[in-house]
Amino acid sequence: MPELRRNLISGDWVIIATERAKRPEDFKKKAGDKKVFLEFSEKCPFCPGNENQTPPADLVINKGEKWQIRTCLNKFAALSSKGELNRKCEGIWHSLQGIGRHEVIIETPKHNLTTALLEVEEIKLILNAYQARYLEIQKNKNIEMIIIFKNHGESAGTSLEHPHSQLIATPVVSSHIRHRLQEAIRFKDETGDCVFCKTMLEELKNGERVILENKYFVTFIPYAAYSPFHIWVFPKRHYSSFAEILEEEKISLAETLKIVLNKIYVKLDNPDYNYIICSSPLGIGEVDYFHWYLSIIPRITKAAGFELGSGMYINSALPEASAKFLREE
Amino acid sequence: MPELRRNLISGDWVIIATERAKRPEDFKKKAGDKKVFLEFSEKCPFCPGNENQTPPADLVINKGEKWQIRTCLNKFAALSSKGELNRKCEGIWHSLQGIGRHEVIIETPKHNLTTALLEVEEIKLILNAYQARYLEIQKNKNIEMIIIFKNHGESAGTSLEHPHSQLIATPVVSSHIRHRLQEAIRFKDETGDCVFCKTMLEELKNGERVILENKYFVTFIPYAAYSPFHIWVFPKRHYSSFAEILEEEKISLAETLKIVLNKIYVKLDNPDYNYIICSSPLGIGEVDYFHWYLSIIPRITKAAGFELGSGMYINSALPEASAKFLREE
Repeated sequence: MPELRRNLISGDWVIIATERAKRPEDFKKKAGDKKVFLEFSEKCPFCPGNENQTPPADLVINKGEKWQIRTCLNKFAALSSKGELNRKCEGIWHSLQGIGRHEVIIETPKHNLTTALLEVEEIKLILNAYQARYLEIQKNKNIEMIIIFKNHGESAGTSLEHPHSQLIATPVVSSHIRHRLQEAIRFKDETGDCVFCKTMLEELKNGERVILENKYFVTFIPYAAYSPFHIWVFPKRHYSSFAEILEEEKISLAETLKIVLNKIYVKLDNPDYNYIICSSPLGIGEVDYFHWYLSIIPRITKAAGFELGSGMYINSALPEASAKFLREE
Repeated sequence: MPELRRNLISGDWVIIATERAKRPEDFKKKAGDKKVFLEFSEKCPFCPGNENQTPPADLVINKGEKWQIRTCLNKFAALSSKGELNRKCEGIWHSLQGIGRHEVIIETPKHNLTTALLEVEEIKLILNAYQARYLEIQKNKNIEMIIIFKNHGESAGTSLEHPHSQLIATPVVSSHIRHRLQEAIRFKDETGDCVFCKTMLEELKNGERVILENKYFVTFIPYAAYSPFHIWVFPKRHYSSFAEILEEEKISLAETLKIVLNKIYVKLDNPDYNYIICSSPLGIGEVDYFHWYLSIIPRITKAAGFELGSGMYINSALPEASAKFLREE
């Protein structure tokens, strides 16, 4: 019998269609989808030596004499970093100029690596870069929301193989995020708790869906996970903005990402995935009801007409079974 | 300069990234993606002669001596049509049994056809089937929402080539639909108008994004379209539930679908697409603030980390240019 589960944090309902469930290992990539890349690709704009093919670097982190991480504007930016917002309301048409910031974070000089195969110290440097860019960009009064995300693989929406993440800073808060905030405020009003802290504590107490716990982070498959192996990484300390992450927390998060992304890499055979840092909109500051987190979404299934039309999800994997599969050595 | 546009109906912001815009014809499918099918496939459970491979038909519409349309339960249903809801709230975990209905509508006996190539009278029969099943299923007191949708092609989420649509009836209203209702109520309160009627009238007055207008329907690319060639089909008459569609309106809608899906088929080279009938939740009945409509979403671009994390969309096509491209003979 399928089951409907309500995601407390978003208010979304998810259909856990256990009757359709495959075994966890059946979500592995098919052999035909595998590709092999070399450490250096002559035509790749992110490879060392080709720096002139990208806009100038905003941040460079060296390792020895060479760069380990470079961040710069996205050459094909979705938002422009110059200009005036110029908000217009003409009858029912509301618009503003596409002002914001769209950057790429080149995560390593090596073309053929992936986060799962980096050293913890190297992942820590990526987190340093995320935080440095976040802190710099949030000074801009036009920016209301900063989304840091990674598209790994073609079905996750990337066109470049070289390991990189992206940052998009927008001059508006999306209605999606507004609804999350409203749900969180309501939970706080009704119970006195942060819905994220409460969820994390209950997941830890229950244990069935937990993949990993270390000093500063808890990693689990949500009770109402939207899709197979949808994973949440929550900081144990309550704070709203990723910008406020501490040095020791970054090390702990780097260790977490190394282990979890490696588990996905090995056990699901390097699936395409996205991860996203869900941080509070800049205007609200630190609040007791919102808690930043990182969401990992392997792109194993496709959203079809039902999902697009209803905003509900059909997850063909039982979250408890997926978590057990990833937890096991 | 990119532009941000607000979708009045959903409240969602869309980035129209004109700097990334391709020409409309560049969204055509690549030649390598084309496949050819025969009229009959021995292994297809939806082909005539294989009726015993599906659950028994709930509705059969004949043309001459043979069936033209068959509807039945989905063999791999996401929701079960038998059982008790049994809603549970155990601490923060809210669940109910996956009771509902998941049906397939087999649209034609011919394996290799597609809606764009059917006759208007054949499409009208599909709409008859949709309405008949909708009317039957809404009698069930456990059902709160009925979504009728079509997945055409692999990237739109279908695993079977034979032309078919689906119906999923759920025992809850999704938060996505709740938010739409709230936006519509607010607009009604603020202006006295139905936001759908108002949008349609303004689109007709402006004309730039209109693809087609006939006696009972207006077809246009929304001002803040989420993706290239995202299309809305609105009934001119104000009513909330698709169940209430009249005979002459079904003929008019069949004519509309024939023309619009054929334009997509020819001009974009048979892209994968979804369409969805967005009807009011059953519990609210006919109301002055909600208006059903049909949404067509060609699957030309992929949602990546930014879209998944923010709920905002980046549309690389200018809606006015896409509409002009489809409008032209």
